[in-house]
Amino acid sequence: MQRPTDEDFAIRLRLDIAYDGTDFHGWARQAGDQRTVQGRLEQALGTAARSPGQPPRPIAAGRTDAGVHATGQVAHLDLTAGQAESLLRRVGADGVARRVNGVLGADGDLVVRASALAPAGFDARFSAIWRRYEYRIADAEAVLDPLQRRRTLVVPRRMDDAAIVDASAALTGLHDFAAFCRPRPFATTIRTLQSLSWAREDDGVLVARLQADAFCHGMVRSIVGACLAVSTGRLRPDGPARLLSDAVRSGEYPVAPARGLTLTEVGYPPDAELADRAEHTRALRVLATELSSP
Amino acid sequence: MQRPTDEDFAIRLRLDIAYDGTDFHGWARQAGDQRTVQGRLEQALGTAARSPGQPPRPIAAGRTDAGVHATGQVAHLDLTAGQAESLLRRVGADGVARRVNGVLGADGDLVVRASALAPAGFDARFSAIWRRYEYRIADAEAVLDPLQRRRTLVVPRRMDDAAIVDASAALTGLHDFAAFCRPRPFATTIRTLQSLSWAREDDGVLVARLQADAFCHGMVRSIVGACLAVSTGRLRPDGPARLLSDAVRSGEYPVAPARGLTLTEVGYPPDAELADRAEHTRALRVLATELSSP
Repeated sequence: MQRPTDEDFAIRLRLDIAYDGTDFHGWARQAGDQRTVQGRLEQALGTAARSPGQPPRPIAAGRTDAGVHATGQVAHLDLTAGQAESLLRRVGADGVARRVNGVLGADGDLVVRASALAPAGFDARFSAIWRRYEYRIADAEAVLDPLQRRRTLVVPRRMDDAAIVDASAALTGLHDFAAFCRPRPFATTIRTLQSLSWAREDDGVLVARLQADAFCHGMVRSIVGACLAVSTGRLRPDGPARLLSDAVRSGEYPVAPARGLTLTEVGYPPDAELADRAEHTRALRVLATELSSP
Repeated sequence: MQRPTDEDFAIRLRLDIAYDGTDFHGWARQAGDQRTVQGRLEQALGTAARSPGQPPRPIAAGRTDAGVHATGQVAHLDLTAGQAESLLRRVGADGVARRVNGVLGADGDLVVRASALAPAGFDARFSAIWRRYEYRIADAEAVLDPLQRRRTLVVPRRMDDAAIVDASAALTGLHDFAAFCRPRPFATTIRTLQSLSWAREDDGVLVARLQADAFCHGMVRSIVGACLAVSTGRLRPDGPARLLSDAVRSGEYPVAPARGLTLTEVGYPPDAELADRAEHTRALRVLATELSSP
């Protein structure tokens, strides 16, 4: 069977998705038997749309790594007329979430929270204007809660909140985050870190909240790891700021484990600006690719 | 080796404990290979006290069933002088929690949150004056969160909050809860349900909170099950109240699954009243046993 071409697609849907990433090898579908979020969702969509051989392929705003969680992932997917007929029949676009959860199991580690017809020009990845992540750390100050352990890093010592906040301050704004990213060919590492804040929850759990236009690969976990390394004395207080001038990823400190990280929200512009935003993002990518090419 | 006698024990500790009950066959140690909270904790205490052959045995305030969770379980345990020497050496009573977590793993499904010398007369089970439980239900009104699924019952329909609250009202106070309990020989089923409230969290999850002097076996899950059965129409609005006059457990409605249930807190009187309270509770049990005997 041929893969459908652009002309074959009749309808684009937006899905809001949540998952416990512990038992997934990340978002992106891989060759082989690895259990991925995209792969599992595609499979369930194929079943629900009665199109198991050629399932609709969801495209996500954030391609989370193995073990990373999401409460606010967003994806789009394109349906052929036949798939739309099967999937939307009797329930409409809003009912697709429940139909897919019927296949996935509503109490499993992956659920679709909401589904809707995508507004014109909507692209889950390229229309997004910001992403928010949160990183949870239970240090010696926190009350341990086994029911939250799958989304929380446990460290046996007491973290130094003031040192962490100080070290973080220099990182916000527009920078080349090359030293905080796993390199990808032809991908720019220039990003705007719009905010980076730290707070203690009522139970003493230390939570970092980060927002950027986009994050490059491994960036949140590198930033969190560098800040924790300042607290433990492995990096000097000006270490994270100093790293901003480096062109390659540092080995001076450990990257924070996936376990504590959750994608919590993705922001989009008003509907009228969706297509322009996607066009703009794609153009920047083409430019970055050309500049990176030899 | 002989089990130590009362005279052999030098020190009583109080432990505050939390667990994700999903992978435990309940609190109580059982014959065979079943993984239980008491068994696992005993094993870790034996290792930490260098007394693996004769480990200290923790006694809990609430003997939770298979699959039931706890954030506020309380236990006491008695140490021989030799065990106390090994377990408390250099860290004191407060340091026992960290020492035991070092064996259990602080990011596992069972942790000791705090440890202390028990005040005189303290008995985790018999000194307690109340227990609090919480039951979480994600119905069609709630936002599904896979990261909270292990402690949350998911039901596909919309629960009727008003009907549930109305049905609950008749249950508080002093009653014979025989119709809501799994019978245990020589155990009274007369209890005071001090409070039973229902609330929606910010994410729409429906949470029942119950407090009683003590709960008999299966009582919380039966009460929650009966209230949900009113919402689904399986029981009439006056069904739960009517059941109070029954002498045996009803089969008219399903008991709520263990998954949604968490023991959140145990209350004790001021230290000066601990011994009297324990004596009083034990005397009531003896009386109940004599009254129940033929």
